[in-house]
Amino acid sequence: MKISEMGEFKLIESLSKLVGKPRDDAVIMGIGDDAACWRTEDGMLLATTDSLVEGVHFTLKVTTWRELGWKALSVNLSDIAAMGGIPKYAMISLGVPRDTDAENISRLYQGILELAQAFDVDIIGGDTVASPVMMINITLIGVVPGGQDILTRKAAVPGDQVAVTGHLGASSAGLAMLNREIEFNYHIAKALREAHLKPSPRVAEGQALARCGVKACIDLSDGLMGDLEKLCKSSGVGARVFIDHIPCHPATVESFEDAAVTFALTGGEDYELLFTAKASVIEGVREAVSCPVTVIGEVVKGRGIRALDEAGIEVHVGDRGWDHFGRRGR
Amino acid sequence: MKISEMGEFKLIESLSKLVGKPRDDAVIMGIGDDAACWRTEDGMLLATTDSLVEGVHFTLKVTTWRELGWKALSVNLSDIAAMGGIPKYAMISLGVPRDTDAENISRLYQGILELAQAFDVDIIGGDTVASPVMMINITLIGVVPGGQDILTRKAAVPGDQVAVTGHLGASSAGLAMLNREIEFNYHIAKALREAHLKPSPRVAEGQALARCGVKACIDLSDGLMGDLEKLCKSSGVGARVFIDHIPCHPATVESFEDAAVTFALTGGEDYELLFTAKASVIEGVREAVSCPVTVIGEVVKGRGIRALDEAGIEVHVGDRGWDHFGRRGR
Repeated sequence: MKISEMGEFKLIESLSKLVGKPRDDAVIMGIGDDAACWRTEDGMLLATTDSLVEGVHFTLKVTTWRELGWKALSVNLSDIAAMGGIPKYAMISLGVPRDTDAENISRLYQGILELAQAFDVDIIGGDTVASPVMMINITLIGVVPGGQDILTRKAAVPGDQVAVTGHLGASSAGLAMLNREIEFNYHIAKALREAHLKPSPRVAEGQALARCGVKACIDLSDGLMGDLEKLCKSSGVGARVFIDHIPCHPATVESFEDAAVTFALTGGEDYELLFTAKASVIEGVREAVSCPVTVIGEVVKGRGIRALDEAGIEVHVGDRGWDHFGRRGR
Repeated sequence: MKISEMGEFKLIESLSKLVGKPRDDAVIMGIGDDAACWRTEDGMLLATTDSLVEGVHFTLKVTTWRELGWKALSVNLSDIAAMGGIPKYAMISLGVPRDTDAENISRLYQGILELAQAFDVDIIGGDTVASPVMMINITLIGVVPGGQDILTRKAAVPGDQVAVTGHLGASSAGLAMLNREIEFNYHIAKALREAHLKPSPRVAEGQALARCGVKACIDLSDGLMGDLEKLCKSSGVGARVFIDHIPCHPATVESFEDAAVTFALTGGEDYELLFTAKASVIEGVREAVSCPVTVIGEVVKGRGIRALDEAGIEVHVGDRGWDHFGRRGR
């Protein structure tokens, strides 16, 4: 079977089976969460890796080299954030077409460094090789603050509320704006562009979640519905999402109006944190962090994610929006 | 300036300057050695990363998927070996063309796993993305045995002997055989093919070097002359190499005869260890390891690597062989 027919999730599932359980019992989390985690004598370490490939994840027609560097590191920072960790060391691997201007690679590095310095991350190594297209792979190593637990995808339990940090949908709205060359006013265009190309990973917030007693978390990279499904599947639970509770990004609402909720539900790359916990724990989180925290649903027994409209009627959420099982809404 | 005009080493040098010194003083070794190294409360950790890109580092015309997996991990194991470390955890990032058969990705993983299990390495994470060509990036994390120092490229001192483990040249001879479709007898063909596609990293030997008191080491990935130059440049020293002392691989001598020494000098990808130490330390190493250990030269004051023939006359070593400054030898 071709990879394209199989899909990414099934492929990862099959590779994960092949790899099997780690033999070293210091490994607390192997394949299947936002980052791997293992115990050392003086605490827990985290490692995550993410690749961006030209033509697949980005195009240099709309992304500057600096922005590309920033984004490549930010997606990794977001994975460490989703474990409640402190990012420490990055390894940068580049695949570079031979006719690339060296100055552009410097700009790429400047984008990485700008974000690395903001989060106190040291670049400790890497690899640079020739490649037919530009590609960036970053591995980020982090630590878990002493005495603290990691956040995982396996810890959601029925009765938990489902919450998110920040606002959703602006990244994919930004992508749509850039790809379709839609013109908005300066402030909206800037907000959407930055949401897509310079996301701010929720590193401090991830640590605050862990301190406040949250156990279950994932970062929003593939889209709210898809990532919630992954979280719930790992935990062996289901969830209900209240569509009218979703904190759509104001710039998206202003620019794309009714489609804003679709971007928020399925758009992806928001790099906000999606987490579940008891109501009282979420109250604590709200006081501990400076960004918005919004309850958007609840964890239930069983399987699957159901999205409900303001009347409590189940709606179907697809890539192109959501509808009442066939009738396209909004 | 285009990357192709600048060359890999200059590019890495310029990026390394841009990155600057690590701000965290727990970092003992950042960019510029076989692996990065940082201190934790209970010891030192190592991390290294290497990418292989289809059409640049391998072609699936002559490499099986299993061999590709093996090789991708082995080049990383070799970097940990060159620091004297124990490899522990691997993160596997794949870029996969959409029309790839999933069965082939399983075979690739089986090759990785075969070697991982032999060296007690756990695969703890990774990333799989679409890509126009096949690419594999592996990040390998290791530990330094308690109470032991790391091996670095910075520790060669004048008066040291220069030594290598094993035999050299078979990997690049294997590549030449495969690319030029040369036919040799079964045993030679097998030895050369395996040297190129299934190298055995010198992990136990690296640890033995450190235990025996060796301080300066690099693994042979780019070729003896080039890697010795890197080691010496990092250490601020020069070296003399005695060409007739070089342990050419028997299968290369048998198949490529006089060209064997060229493969050994400049061929690359042997994944043997090149190290320098006092004669008495090297004697200790010879007793501690089961593979051949051959003294091939000496570290001297100054700069540059000089290759000398059996009469003590300096020869010029280029990509296409070596000669007495213009007159092509052997």
